[in-house]
Amino acid sequence: MSTLPSRVAIREVALRDGLQIEAPIPLSAKLELLAAIAATGVREVEVTSFVSPTKVPALADAAELAAELWRYPDLEFSALVASPGGAVRAVTAGFKSIEYVVCASDAFSTANVGRPTAQAVAAITDIAGIAHDAGASVEVIIATAWDCPFEGPTDPARVTEIASSASALGVDRLAIADTIGTATPRRVTDLIAAVQPIIGGIPLGAHFHNTRGAGLACAYAAVQAGITRLDSSAGGLGGCPFAPGATGNIATEDLVYLLGDCGIDTGIDLDAAIAAAGVASTVVGHGLPSALLAAGDRKRD
Amino acid sequence: MSTLPSRVAIREVALRDGLQIEAPIPLSAKLELLAAIAATGVREVEVTSFVSPTKVPALADAAELAAELWRYPDLEFSALVASPGGAVRAVTAGFKSIEYVVCASDAFSTANVGRPTAQAVAAITDIAGIAHDAGASVEVIIATAWDCPFEGPTDPARVTEIASSASALGVDRLAIADTIGTATPRRVTDLIAAVQPIIGGIPLGAHFHNTRGAGLACAYAAVQAGITRLDSSAGGLGGCPFAPGATGNIATEDLVYLLGDCGIDTGIDLDAAIAAAGVASTVVGHGLPSALLAAGDRKRD
Repeated sequence: MSTLPSRVAIREVALRDGLQIEAPIPLSAKLELLAAIAATGVREVEVTSFVSPTKVPALADAAELAAELWRYPDLEFSALVASPGGAVRAVTAGFKSIEYVVCASDAFSTANVGRPTAQAVAAITDIAGIAHDAGASVEVIIATAWDCPFEGPTDPARVTEIASSASALGVDRLAIADTIGTATPRRVTDLIAAVQPIIGGIPLGAHFHNTRGAGLACAYAAVQAGITRLDSSAGGLGGCPFAPGATGNIATEDLVYLLGDCGIDTGIDLDAAIAAAGVASTVVGHGLPSALLAAGDRKRD
Repeated sequence: MSTLPSRVAIREVALRDGLQIEAPIPLSAKLELLAAIAATGVREVEVTSFVSPTKVPALADAAELAAELWRYPDLEFSALVASPGGAVRAVTAGFKSIEYVVCASDAFSTANVGRPTAQAVAAITDIAGIAHDAGASVEVIIATAWDCPFEGPTDPARVTEIASSASALGVDRLAIADTIGTATPRRVTDLIAAVQPIIGGIPLGAHFHNTRGAGLACAYAAVQAGITRLDSSAGGLGGCPFAPGATGNIATEDLVYLLGDCGIDTGIDLDAAIAAAGVASTVVGHGLPSALLAAGDRKRD
């Protein structure tokens, strides 16, 4: 068996990836969820995106939400952008951590942001410049890293090319994202083994969805492969527009349960994470796929 | 990374573990589900149990169901028993494969079968004798192998003692079962490493529930640790009486998806497995936690 790391950093993405396909909720509800998330002990929170408010109306209040974040000086907030214009808005709103999504699949990239992968990669320079000029860091998230809903399996060479370009263009972090929840452990292990050696020591994270039930198995495989940065979402909030009715992001509390039981510290309190999942369910007004929210913790004494 | 096996045998348990806490359904509905299961290509099917019809009314038709199994000469059917009397009924009904459950936790054993672990172990000799005299094989399934809902964590020494006793008493196979769905990958790896060396080469299987979302991650960890026999249930049919509303057995189609994608042959057709999950949902008349049933396969070309 491979040696597991002693610590994994979880980035909580319920407020962005979780809410983005939900019907818009009031800012006050987002702040309620944020308070519950902050109480878990998590350090990194992806809180919104600066994208088209027409395409993603649920996150149209990004600047208003940003204005409330001073309440949590100990948290590291990030915002996702899809263009240099979004990066300008994000740093103007005060974000010191920007995530820029590049889709490895041309078809998905075109459907998502209206331009193929190569053009999205070309914008990294501008976005990194905007971020760095504002004293912010930038992470490139490589979406559809394993599969595209339109094109099928993603050639790993497309992912390594993006990763290589991004690291050469001076990004601060990279992540590979299973956008539509189709990855499985061996393909996770293989892709990490391909990407890790060519990015010059830049921190590499991974982002999984549970759409085919394998999200936690992928997270575990990623951790076995040396990944110590994972995204997850309170309650598993976050559907998949390409699989209506299916589960979305891996649930933070389920991930904390699994990692904690493997002796891996996440800094997150499990009971508080389950409570945050309950708040997530309340603010969106429907049930969530979280296992721990339904079953609770195991008896420990 | 550890080397993955090229083949894993899945035992389909929807008709027993899946149905046992459901409201009873007609024999005709079970046969409809069995037909769908048989069409998947699975070879081993745990089809019923010979236990108290008062305690498990959903499986009270065990002998009637057994009388229909001649329709599937290529399948290997097994029945679960909890006592020598059950074993007699099972072999009388024609079963050539008997599973006998021994609970590693005294509290769970007493609640489940009215006697502590040591007395359950003592019955192995009789049950193995009944099975072998009838030309049947016997598998001891060690329940609550990781945790008990009443006592908390199970001392691994209790599991290894049962495994050691069972192998010495001439059982043909062993399995370790995460009865309440609390196991996580590292504890799975550790327990397999403890049990495997002391059972003299007897085949060892593993049985996981997805109650805390980690079922597939545990299955993957087990396979990494050399396990090539796994139980799963069409659609994830099978709740947990100790976690109402939570998911139960790992879903066959989700497991087949994951293992197949890791290059592991299960002999099971994924589309047929998804179809069987749909039949499972229909015969019980409610939704099931299966991920693949909701999301479908990924695009492969």
